[in-house]
Amino acid sequence: MQPDLSRFSVNQITTPNWSMAQAIEGYAGQGVGGIACWRNYVADYGVERTARHIRDAGLWVASLCTSAWLNAATEADYRAAIEENRRILDTAAAMGAPCVVMVVGGLPAGCKDIMGQRARVRDALHALAPHARAVGVRLGLEPLHPMYAGDRSVLNSIKDANDLCDELGDAAGLVPDVYHCWWDPCFEAELRRAGPDRILTFHYCDWLVPTRNLRDRGMVGDGVVDIPRIRGWLDDIGYAGKFELELFSELDWWNRPGEETVRIGIERCAPHVGPLPAIAKDQS
Amino acid sequence: MQPDLSRFSVNQITTPNWSMAQAIEGYAGQGVGGIACWRNYVADYGVERTARHIRDAGLWVASLCTSAWLNAATEADYRAAIEENRRILDTAAAMGAPCVVMVVGGLPAGCKDIMGQRARVRDALHALAPHARAVGVRLGLEPLHPMYAGDRSVLNSIKDANDLCDELGDAAGLVPDVYHCWWDPCFEAELRRAGPDRILTFHYCDWLVPTRNLRDRGMVGDGVVDIPRIRGWLDDIGYAGKFELELFSELDWWNRPGEETVRIGIERCAPHVGPLPAIAKDQS
Repeated sequence: MQPDLSRFSVNQITTPNWSMAQAIEGYAGQGVGGIACWRNYVADYGVERTARHIRDAGLWVASLCTSAWLNAATEADYRAAIEENRRILDTAAAMGAPCVVMVVGGLPAGCKDIMGQRARVRDALHALAPHARAVGVRLGLEPLHPMYAGDRSVLNSIKDANDLCDELGDAAGLVPDVYHCWWDPCFEAELRRAGPDRILTFHYCDWLVPTRNLRDRGMVGDGVVDIPRIRGWLDDIGYAGKFELELFSELDWWNRPGEETVRIGIERCAPHVGPLPAIAKDQS
Repeated sequence: MQPDLSRFSVNQITTPNWSMAQAIEGYAGQGVGGIACWRNYVADYGVERTARHIRDAGLWVASLCTSAWLNAATEADYRAAIEENRRILDTAAAMGAPCVVMVVGGLPAGCKDIMGQRARVRDALHALAPHARAVGVRLGLEPLHPMYAGDRSVLNSIKDANDLCDELGDAAGLVPDVYHCWWDPCFEAELRRAGPDRILTFHYCDWLVPTRNLRDRGMVGDGVVDIPRIRGWLDDIGYAGKFELELFSELDWWNRPGEETVRIGIERCAPHVGPLPAIAKDQS
């Protein structure tokens, strides 16, 4: 029986050696429903050409990755980053991406004020919200694992992301990733708080034991994340949205042929990306 | 002017190539006030001999590191781990260590139920509390960075550690470490909630950018942790207890001569381990 992959996308960073065109063909050829795109691949191939090719291949777009970092050391560079993010929202709109995944950057050079930087990111999101609404693209808040707080993102808890969504209204949504959140004692509670409509796409991969470096994510099933349980929470809140495989894997999957990574990714994810059960389970 | 190191200890894992005797002499010789001991070094040198040597050198003991892990795969092994932890508490009492640092282990082999394992750790702490009280040694709850949740400790948030301390009363206390907690949006609030008496010893090191692997802690001042600000919170709540340098540094400090690591550690920590200011600062 063919698995139902209509809710399932692959994030193209999972097959970094594939060009934009190869990724589109490679995913569609194996029956994947959607694709999450990265800006550098889109820029190489062209925005219009990417959008047309994705449409012709019958895929939907999960997101455009990622925002420009907001950890500028000077006020002028910070304002430039805000403006760059408006252009990224425009690109997302042009290619039919429902959200831009906000990876907001770590600490500015020479800065140790993580609380100050978090306040600045909040200001930046408020500054971007009107443009996001105007172009119909949501700010996809992805809390990143605390081990990336220094150099990739100071947004490190799903609770804080939910708080920001409360403030930003329909300009924003959540992009939860099991890799970043699996350890968090409030992961379940914050997914329930978010409810089904705030979740824009839901990222799967796995946490390996041992983890060898900070780009060593595992294929679904190879680590310690309890994916069926988490999927159960999502069914329970009535989440009917997208699932996505996203692997950063410097030492393993990035070195395999894209076809193999996608094939095994489908095998592993298929049990966890199917349609919402007709009767939502009672997990309480 | 000689710095006041009376509140300052070095954790002997910082100089792993030194024997117990070398660490005692090496720290005392440079004026450090205390030492945190690891079980394997104590066992090699002997409990009584370690205790006598530390006393003769004029040092105090910050803690005994660490508990036996509680992530046993079978019920029998779990009960054996509880019993082993009672013996570790006895050892701590025999050498005048005020606490055992509880590093509780990650997930049992083959287990993906982190919430279940956290519940089990809670049960274990309650099982150990009467013995801890009986021998006058506190269970030192050290929340470990979320990146260690899989394989070193499922206790990953200072909020959860404070919740456990509320339950365990005077049988337990906190061992906060800036490396594990610096990113946590509720770090300050949870230190204020803890108050001065619950904090048993306070660990310093630094978070490096970039961080190369999961044992790549930085020397105080070399990373992005705002130590003066954190020390300010501690002064503000009236914390008059111990500070401790603890470095896991596979790629750098562990390969240097112990004398050099201790000398530079003192230089870097001295500004942050002095006496409590006469008038507590108002940080609000």
